Amino acid sequence: MAIAGSVEAVARLKRSRLKVRFCTNESQKSRAELVGQLRRLGFDISEGEVTAPAPAACQILKERGLRPHLLIHDGVRSEFDQIDTSNPNCVVIADAGESFSYQNMNSAFQVLMELENPVLISLGKGRYYKETSGLMLDVGPYMKALEYACGIRAEVVGKPSPEFFKSALQAIGVEAHQAVMIGDDIVGDVGGAQRCGMRALQVRTGKFRPSDEHHPEVKADGYVDNLAEAVDLLLQHVDK
Amino acid sequence: MAIAGSVEAVARLKRSRLKVRFCTNESQKSRAELVGQLRRLGFDISEGEVTAPAPAACQILKERGLRPHLLIHDGVRSEFDQIDTSNPNCVVIADAGESFSYQNMNSAFQVLMELENPVLISLGKGRYYKETSGLMLDVGPYMKALEYACGIRAEVVGKPSPEFFKSALQAIGVEAHQAVMIGDDIVGDVGGAQRCGMRALQVRTGKFRPSDEHHPEVKADGYVDNLAEAVDLLLQHVDK
Repeated sequence: MAIAGSVEAVARLKRSRLKVRFCTNESQKSRAELVGQLRRLGFDISEGEVTAPAPAACQILKERGLRPHLLIHDGVRSEFDQIDTSNPNCVVIADAGESFSYQNMNSAFQVLMELENPVLISLGKGRYYKETSGLMLDVGPYMKALEYACGIRAEVVGKPSPEFFKSALQAIGVEAHQAVMIGDDIVGDVGGAQRCGMRALQVRTGKFRPSDEHHPEVKADGYVDNLAEAVDLLLQHVDK
Repeated sequence: MAIAGSVEAVARLKRSRLKVRFCTNESQKSRAELVGQLRRLGFDISEGEVTAPAPAACQILKERGLRPHLLIHDGVRSEFDQIDTSNPNCVVIADAGESFSYQNMNSAFQVLMELENPVLISLGKGRYYKETSGLMLDVGPYMKALEYACGIRAEVVGKPSPEFFKSALQAIGVEAHQAVMIGDDIVGDVGGAQRCGMRALQVRTGKFRPSDEHHPEVKADGYVDNLAEAVDLLLQHVDK
């Protein structure tokens, strides 16, 4: 179920003269699946309005002539349908969940070790996330494992990478100083957006923790209880 | 099969007045199994002569009242028979091979995250090793994954940890400056021993690579073609 007021808040935003873009680090599902879930919750959202790591990675792969070995969740595989994966010359790693078996990790490792110039692209670098069953390892730890094994550094696609925020801004033709990021992750959402020159509000929902308001490195431009309150704030400023 | 001359070299060492200790980072098998394999190859070696990470870790666990959650290979589990693993207050990770499943990694991660003061003990920190089927991920990458996931640093038991070399020296009552380490790993064997005040010879067998003789950080006190040549050298010095 959506947080109270969020469906209506998105609708109000889209009726305003503001431009809206949805930025997610979701990399277990395709945009189609993600948008389907959100629409069933009542949100007015379409695939074309979403900036997500998998399509961003596909663009990088095409631009640089990279053919990936994919260590990813089956749910996101369809995003790579148009990508040549024969004779791989890089590895793309995403939150693969149960597919992070020893065998799959070792195969990715072996591909990297056979390359003269090993390229590892990671969809996000989150440490973990919370499910009803408890905390779950995200892609970050596995990215670090391959970095250490191969003596390389991964290229991260997704929040808080500046390129990722820039591609979201480009998609709607908005300058960073005109944009406001709204998110629940003090580092990935707020810190990342601010480093790009955007302002950022943190919502006190999802992965928000009270200690975030005294974070040693990142200070949001504002803290709001939820998305509805964030949209109230934005629309007040627009009306002025 | 043993490298030519090695069985006889060990026999000559043990007939001399030198004290001998075998230091291994093997953490997939128990000492009993390792020694059994070596004896079948003809080596004169007994369990009591071996310094290995698992028994060293057991001593640390006992001294500090730690009850481990074990993420290890079944082959080494017998080394922990005397250890209380109920209600764990630390994690011990070793080269677990196929047992490095997502589920097992996540269980270890969850144990660490529930501890107020998470302790992670790693048996070695090797990046990878070579098998006939190709390169295989060692414990190091998985140690790094848990370090990143939990925001902690692991305690490494095994070469090149100084405590590990010291416990080997203690076991035979020899001072570091009197001892010579012989090994094939320029960093783990040679560098580690030297940092403890020992001298160290590198053998040009096993994981030796020609570039080791120009290593940017570690310079062995001598390079020899194999164990037999190392023992020749030692015994010449003893006779003088």
